[in-house]
Amino acid sequence: MSQLVYNDDIKIIKGSITAPQGFLAAGEHTGIKKRKKDLTLVKSDVPAAAAGTFTQNLVKAPCVVRNKNLIANKINGIVINSGVANACTGETGARNNELMAKTYAECLNADKSSVLTASTGLIGTQLPMDTLATGIKNLYSLINNDFASAGNAAEGIMTTDTFPKEIAVETKIGNKTVRFGGIAKGSGMIHPNMATMLAFITTDADIERSLLQKALSESVDDSYNMISVDGDTSTNDMVIVLANKKAGNKPIIAEDEDYKKFKEALHYVNINLAKQIVTDGEGVTRFMEVHVKGAVTKQDAKSIAKSIINSNLVKTAIFGSDANWGRIICAAGYSGAKFTPAGASIEFSSTAGAIITFMRGEPVVFDEEKALQVLKEKEIKILLTLEDGKAEAIARGCDLSYEYVKINGEYRT
Amino acid sequence: MSQLVYNDDIKIIKGSITAPQGFLAAGEHTGIKKRKKDLTLVKSDVPAAAAGTFTQNLVKAPCVVRNKNLIANKINGIVINSGVANACTGETGARNNELMAKTYAECLNADKSSVLTASTGLIGTQLPMDTLATGIKNLYSLINNDFASAGNAAEGIMTTDTFPKEIAVETKIGNKTVRFGGIAKGSGMIHPNMATMLAFITTDADIERSLLQKALSESVDDSYNMISVDGDTSTNDMVIVLANKKAGNKPIIAEDEDYKKFKEALHYVNINLAKQIVTDGEGVTRFMEVHVKGAVTKQDAKSIAKSIINSNLVKTAIFGSDANWGRIICAAGYSGAKFTPAGASIEFSSTAGAIITFMRGEPVVFDEEKALQVLKEKEIKILLTLEDGKAEAIARGCDLSYEYVKINGEYRT
Repeated sequence: MSQLVYNDDIKIIKGSITAPQGFLAAGEHTGIKKRKKDLTLVKSDVPAAAAGTFTQNLVKAPCVVRNKNLIANKINGIVINSGVANACTGETGARNNELMAKTYAECLNADKSSVLTASTGLIGTQLPMDTLATGIKNLYSLINNDFASAGNAAEGIMTTDTFPKEIAVETKIGNKTVRFGGIAKGSGMIHPNMATMLAFITTDADIERSLLQKALSESVDDSYNMISVDGDTSTNDMVIVLANKKAGNKPIIAEDEDYKKFKEALHYVNINLAKQIVTDGEGVTRFMEVHVKGAVTKQDAKSIAKSIINSNLVKTAIFGSDANWGRIICAAGYSGAKFTPAGASIEFSSTAGAIITFMRGEPVVFDEEKALQVLKEKEIKILLTLEDGKAEAIARGCDLSYEYVKINGEYRT
Repeated sequence: MSQLVYNDDIKIIKGSITAPQGFLAAGEHTGIKKRKKDLTLVKSDVPAAAAGTFTQNLVKAPCVVRNKNLIANKINGIVINSGVANACTGETGARNNELMAKTYAECLNADKSSVLTASTGLIGTQLPMDTLATGIKNLYSLINNDFASAGNAAEGIMTTDTFPKEIAVETKIGNKTVRFGGIAKGSGMIHPNMATMLAFITTDADIERSLLQKALSESVDDSYNMISVDGDTSTNDMVIVLANKKAGNKPIIAEDEDYKKFKEALHYVNINLAKQIVTDGEGVTRFMEVHVKGAVTKQDAKSIAKSIINSNLVKTAIFGSDANWGRIICAAGYSGAKFTPAGASIEFSSTAGAIITFMRGEPVVFDEEKALQVLKEKEIKILLTLEDGKAEAIARGCDLSYEYVKINGEYRT
């Protein structure tokens, strides 16, 4: 999937989560955080089919547990707060999560089992429920389908993110134009496992729920689940997609050509948001893409790519523009995947050119000046070619900087 | 093993690797590095039984591969260089490693299959063989059993270490005094898996080889394998112990009381060296001990403790003296081990006192001033108590500081 060639019908359009027909949103500061936006509402005009993937962390926030139970329902809306993760908050936290859903359900005049919730921020702190309940009611009066409201919604879910993460695309399914919109947040505790940080995607496509879930799960595996900022899998990760049929396409009920086009557009959105998240990783100065080719199995390729992207020693070398390729082969070696070191080759590349440092198990004498030029660029590609098979995978991540340490040494204060 | 109560007979004595009878050593600058000591020789007067544990990284340096094949032989000496890891150096690297052994074997007038080798430093660079061969011959003339020579040997294996790591102990086995000496090096790429960075231990005990290996393997699992500086498992990790019988104790040939005493003393040495390594972790400002109690299995307790000690978010919080316990329970949650979050409790402690932040799944309101006092200390203990079983484990590590990033962003330059 990650090497998917997208069909030409996919076009990026302006806006994000309200771009598909029948979706509205709002985002505002309500008082959970000191100054920044901390609450987001998403609404579907009509009940929408929903699919989701959720954190594999054993310690799950109440919103994760609750959404997993409700995801097969038709969904009318999602309420998301930032600033407080409402994780590890015991029974009080579970009650508060339920109350958050109930308050928004009352605004929507809907059953609370059709409302999903999400929280992100500090673990172990209780939600300020009076502030939140008042905030939801006030914010609902601002809900709209314009670009500004979608932008506010993208801001309302941010924590240490430095920019909001949005995208919208349209494609043709049959003779109908179908739209997809998405928002996501980073940017620390990012090492998704079967799910991810928060991402919310809307589409006006008409698609059967089990196929919606299948398309989402497969896409997430190759997008969010292949990025890492710091190797920490959060307690609150989730990706939710809502599909409300407003595009009027012939219902997708089988894995046919229409399904394929749907999935390609959905995956385009997910890859784009995943890239935005790593580009905005905490303290990031360089973006890193690790491409592993020639592995025996796809899982081997993935394990190796993730092991490299996640190595503190590789990350600090990239921060220091140092072509220290030994750390790359070392990280591949402890990934748990099998491969033949004697057949391994490593190349660094960027817009400034490419440099080979290791060729079929032997070190290559390379031009250090040229290597420095290649590695001074903002986006670095690392290609590890093996000679064991034909499977490949791409992982995306970022460097490890002084700023990351600073941000995370001072997070609560 | 990690909760072992040591018998009173174990006494720390002066010196290190030459403290047991019949062992000699030397260390010196020979020109592999610019200025610092880069070569170490260890010699046993008489052929010694040997045991070893080696890196589980798929990418193994030639010294690791070679030593694994020779470890059952009687061993006369070990030659170790620092500055160049001689890993990922292809066939030339393997030949150079063999040549290194041959050169030292000629000095010892022994077969080269009785000589072990080790290298540590930069991956992917070839050893300067002329410099090294001359260095070995010159250094052999300095070999001695005095304290200074042992100290030089400890320095000769250092890379980014800021102090040499040495220990010697003696204990009684039967009516004989038996001594153990050890040296080790850190201090980056430290996340041992069944083996570790480099550690060399000598003893004059008389013990059957298979029992020597068993005692070593079990001890390594609970000492070096439970520490982490940066989550990167090196290509060159190894621990070697040599036992030369010079103490004259009744040979240890069964898992009896003598074996138990031998193993306790060996484990004391290993735990001590492992602690020295994390205390000298790259850029370390704080030492961290994570104790997990109440897990179902020992393996669960270990997985949880290692997941916590290895989390960048926990490490930066400790660097920032921030009682951000949510990151601890989060890291426990993604460790892969099963436990009941609702039964989990967390306590931070140091010489400045103790503070509970999470009690049976519920956050505890705590005094932030007191927490800061506790966490400002140099040695921080984190206790995670579960209610699922009776197994426990201790992992040891360090914080993640600006200095770590600096050291590793500039390693090759």
